[in-house]
Formats: sequence, C-alpha cells, structure tokens
Amino acid sequence: MKTEQRKKIALTGDRPTGPLHLGHYVGSLKNRLVLQKEYNQYVMIADVQALTDNAENPEKVRNNILQVALDYLAVGIDPKQTTIFIQSMIPEIAELTIFYLNLVTVARLERNPTVKEEIKQKGFGESLPAGFFCYPVSQAADITIVNADVVPVGHDQLPMIEQTAEIVRKFNRIYEHVFTEPQALVPTDAGRLPGIDGQGKMGKSLGNAIFLSDSPDEILKKVMSMYTDPGHLKVSDPGKIEGNVVFTYLDIFDPNKTEVQELKSHYQKGGLGDVVLKKRLNTILQDLLAPIRTRRQEFAQDPASVLAMLHDGTQRTRAVAAQTMDRVRKAMKINYF
Amino acid sequence: MKTEQRKKIALTGDRPTGPLHLGHYVGSLKNRLVLQKEYNQYVMIADVQALTDNAENPEKVRNNILQVALDYLAVGIDPKQTTIFIQSMIPEIAELTIFYLNLVTVARLERNPTVKEEIKQKGFGESLPAGFFCYPVSQAADITIVNADVVPVGHDQLPMIEQTAEIVRKFNRIYEHVFTEPQALVPTDAGRLPGIDGQGKMGKSLGNAIFLSDSPDEILKKVMSMYTDPGHLKVSDPGKIEGNVVFTYLDIFDPNKTEVQELKSHYQKGGLGDVVLKKRLNTILQDLLAPIRTRRQEFAQDPASVLAMLHDGTQRTRAVAAQTMDRVRKAMKINYF
Repeated sequence: MKTEQRKKIALTGDRPTGPLHLGHYVGSLKNRLVLQKEYNQYVMIADVQALTDNAENPEKVRNNILQVALDYLAVGIDPKQTTIFIQSMIPEIAELTIFYLNLVTVARLERNPTVKEEIKQKGFGESLPAGFFCYPVSQAADITIVNADVVPVGHDQLPMIEQTAEIVRKFNRIYEHVFTEPQALVPTDAGRLPGIDGQGKMGKSLGNAIFLSDSPDEILKKVMSMYTDPGHLKVSDPGKIEGNVVFTYLDIFDPNKTEVQELKSHYQKGGLGDVVLKKRLNTILQDLLAPIRTRRQEFAQDPASVLAMLHDGTQRTRAVAAQTMDRVRKAMKINYF
Repeated sequence: MKTEQRKKIALTGDRPTGPLHLGHYVGSLKNRLVLQKEYNQYVMIADVQALTDNAENPEKVRNNILQVALDYLAVGIDPKQTTIFIQSMIPEIAELTIFYLNLVTVARLERNPTVKEEIKQKGFGESLPAGFFCYPVSQAADITIVNADVVPVGHDQLPMIEQTAEIVRKFNRIYEHVFTEPQALVPTDAGRLPGIDGQGKMGKSLGNAIFLSDSPDEILKKVMSMYTDPGHLKVSDPGKIEGNVVFTYLDIFDPNKTEVQELKSHYQKGGLGDVVLKKRLNTILQDLLAPIRTRRQEFAQDPASVLAMLHDGTQRTRAVAAQTMDRVRKAMKINYF
C-alpha cells in the first residue's frame, strides 16, 4: 500500500457581473476541467470583489451568482471534483484582508500594474473606491485562506500573484511560517480571445461577446457580424489574415488545422469569401456550444439544487478557512480566548 | 407600568500600545464613569487598529491588552455597566470594513485631516501601511457594528465621526436604511492634558506621561521635573502662568479653585517658589492615583478573572455584531443561504 500524496491546491474564480462567454471558456474554464482531475480545485464566485466597483448594483451581482454557477456546471466543472464557493460567505477572507492591509504600503498598491491599467480602463479618476484600490490585498487573502499552491492566471494577472507572494513572505517573516508562496500557473497555449469586433479582448459588457448561454440564432448573428478584413470587398480580392477575427477563432476552435492552413492561403490569394468562412466557424461554434447550452438549461430548471451545491462548497471552504484563521491568530498572537 | 426606554448606545476605546496615563484619565476615562450610568456603553480595546502601525510588534499589542483592561477596572469602569471587548475577536468588524471600503474613495481618505496629521506625526512617508491609511473606514465599522448613537471624542477626532456619518448616509441610500448616524460627544470641560515637559499633549511613548500605574516615587519624580516658567529663576522673581504645566494641572486637578487663583496672583507677583507648587500638586495627584493603583494591583493578582471579563464582554458584543451583519447582508442582498 502506498501513501496517498496530498493533491496540490488550485484556486481560481470569476466576478459575478454577467454570464460567462467564449473568452472565459478559452482562457480559463477549459483549463479548469483539466485541473479538477489533477488538483484539489477551488473556484470562487467573487461577489465581494464584484462589489468593489458595483457597490450601487448589488442586485446585478446577486443575480449573476446563479448565472455563473450555471455556466460552471454547463461546461463540466464537477462539484464532486471542484469546490465552488461564494466569496462573501467566507468572513475569514475579510478578516485576513484587514491583517494583510498592514503588510502592504499605499505606495506599493499605487504601483501595481494590473490595478493601474484597470483604473485607467474604468475611468475612475477621483471616484476610485478604496475597496477597488485595495483589491490585490483582498485577492491575497482569497488565495491564501485555502492555502492555494497554484493560481491559474493570464499574463496580465501576474502582478497580482507577485503581490500575494510578497505578502506571504512578509507575514511568514514577521509572525510565523503559516503560508506557502503561491505559484502562478500560466497556460501555454490559451491566448486571449478577441471580441467579435476585433477591438481588444472579449468582455462581458463590451457588446462583443458570444455567451455560453446564447441561442443558436444569437451565435449565428454574432459570427456573421464578425470583424474580418475591411479591405476585402469582393470575393476575388486578396484578404488579410492578421487581425481577422474569423481566422483567429478558426485557429482556436477548428480541429482541422490543415484545412485552416489551406483556407488561409486561399483567402490571401483571393477568391474566398467571408461568408464561407463564417458559416464554417458558425458550425464549429454551434457544435461546441449546443451541449453546453442544453446542460445549462437542464441545471437552470432546478435552481434550488444549484444553490444547495453552492452552499455545500461554501461550507467546505469555510471549514478550511477557519483552520487557516486559527493558525493566523496563533501566529499573530491574537488568540486570546 | 411605564415602558422602559431603550438606553442610547455609546462606543469608545483605546489602542493597546501601552498602559493608560493621566491624559486618558482626564480626556476620556473620567467621562466614561459618567456615561456608563446613562448609556449602554461599549469600550473597545482596539488591537486591530493598534496593529495598523505595529504589525511587526504583535507581542507589544498582546501584552498591553491586559494592561489597558486593568486600567479600566482600576479607574472604576464597571463591567456590569460597560461592555468591554477586544476588537480582533469581532470578525464582523472586518467584514463590515471591507464593504464600507467600497463606499469611500481613495481621494476622500487622502483628505481626512486627522489621518493626514497622524501620518505626518508618525513620519510614514513612502512606508505608509494601507491598513493605517484605511483606518477611518475600519473605525466606521467599529462604531456602527454596535449601532452606537454617540461617540465621545476630542475635537481632533471630529473628522473621523464625519467620515462615519458619510459612510452611513451612503450605505442607507444605496441599500436600505440599516444604520443611525452617530453623533460626536465632545466633552465641554475636559481639555487635552499637556505632557509634563509642556511639549504638546501627554503621550504613551513620548516620555512625558504620568501613568495610572506609576508608583508614588515615580509620580513625585515626574511632578518635580515638570516644566514651569524657565525665566522664574529665583523665588522672588515674578513667574508666568501661561504654558506653566504645574498651574495647568492645578487648574484641572485641584478642587480648591479659590486657593489656586490666589497662588497664581502670588506667583505672578514673585515670591512663590516652584517647589511649593509642585509639592501641592504632588499631594493632589498622589491622593487621586493611590486608590486607582491599589485597585489595579488587586485586579492584577487575578489576570484570569480579567480575561474572563473580557471574554464575556466580547461574547456579548459578538451577538450584537452578528445581528448587525444579518441586517447588512439582507440590505446588500448577499444573504444567499
């Protein structure tokens, strides 16, 4: 008999500010289906983080919790293999965040490149909420409260993991060695999926997303409106591949790489119309999304079961979080009674 | 039979960074002995706040919790009338702080005059901890978690109460009316007690404090070293009253106001030596502090009972805090299960 080795722990999550889309599927959801077999995987529905810039929209955040959970189940995240939990139901994260805030300077938060970029994008200006400014610290608490070994992230999120590692090192040095430094797990193949308008990445609220819950008609309409090569006016014209969203999607979703290569050559020479390509892509995406949509509809018929699943995952996470806080309190010498 | 009216709720507290001194006695402790009869009074030992600029000194914070509790009991704060609790043992305060951080902008925190002044005094510069920067928000959570109607504070703390009132108004407007706007209760008579060196107010770590736990010898030594009028070299010289710490103390502590008036005239004319005045003040302070010191020594012999008292007060506060958070979760629509 062999000793079973402890599975490593992974943590990821999403802000419940809208249903999930193909960009999430390519960038993280697909990866989680692999990770849940190899890791003890936690997936957090980050409602507290969503509230940092949606404080006046609690209804939106609340409603999207169920939507995001349905998306998870629909793509095949398995609650038996993955612990799905709601961030706000783990008060230990707030406690740990407050203690971590003492280990990070205001100047350091101001230098965080990810937050800097997001602040610019969201155009906060003078109205930047303190909660949003401090969210990298909150994220360090999310990651360490479950003792995550790895955090699957995109390149743009690497500074967040570095911030967490800094906090962990400082905590361990000042108090006691309580936490493992988490490692970023950056997928090698999965790039960022551009929106159908070709204007940067696909975004929930940018009007350029194909949602996992879209109907066949919506998918068709979106594929047909995709950005290609604006200089490709007649079928006989030579067309450009670069920046052509249809080809970017075919590269990602079309299993027949040889045919895609042939289509590219044909398109560049001239004589291949956008509509032919879009129909091909539509078929591929319909095939991908149909079973996801069907499973989503099945789960949506019994929201009480979905909530029960979330409740169960949250309870299990709380048990782990409480143990972590016991160790934190002991290390910080604030375990008075 | 008359309906008993609900007593109004008061909240105050101290940072456990050292034993309490005469400045605390004059500025707040004395007042709390009055308030505990009229109000449902909470007194918080603010260890979480102490850690915002003592993160690397958890031992100091921990050790001073008992010291501060002993000072409370010694001056006559009565655990039957006043609920004394430890801040870090109320995780609901951390939760509420995290939600409040979304309702306050970074720009607003930067403008807080009290924090600005403290940042300057403590000389943080680039090393300002985010937790210290955000502590007015944490203080709003301290105050509202127990639904305090009034907060006894000095003039310098008024901006903190205004910050709390702003957060309360915003919370009530965005979500539901959950909180009462707290009022500052500024004592009319009690001014700030200067340190024995006459250099600004008495401070725990400034080396200019007479502690409630000082021995008779320490008190005598400190009174004898008090700052008077540096121009008053010979007994026959006329002396100045203004800035003369001994007279400031006599004004506050000497019950015989007529005699103090006569001593002032005599001193200004010349012919009255500092030593006579200091001996008089010493007698008054020894009489004031002797019974406090005796009671303190009695309580110090049974630290387990003091801890049990803190445990009890903390449990009662947690019950109230949990009710508050139930209302907060309902209002914010994050009461999922």
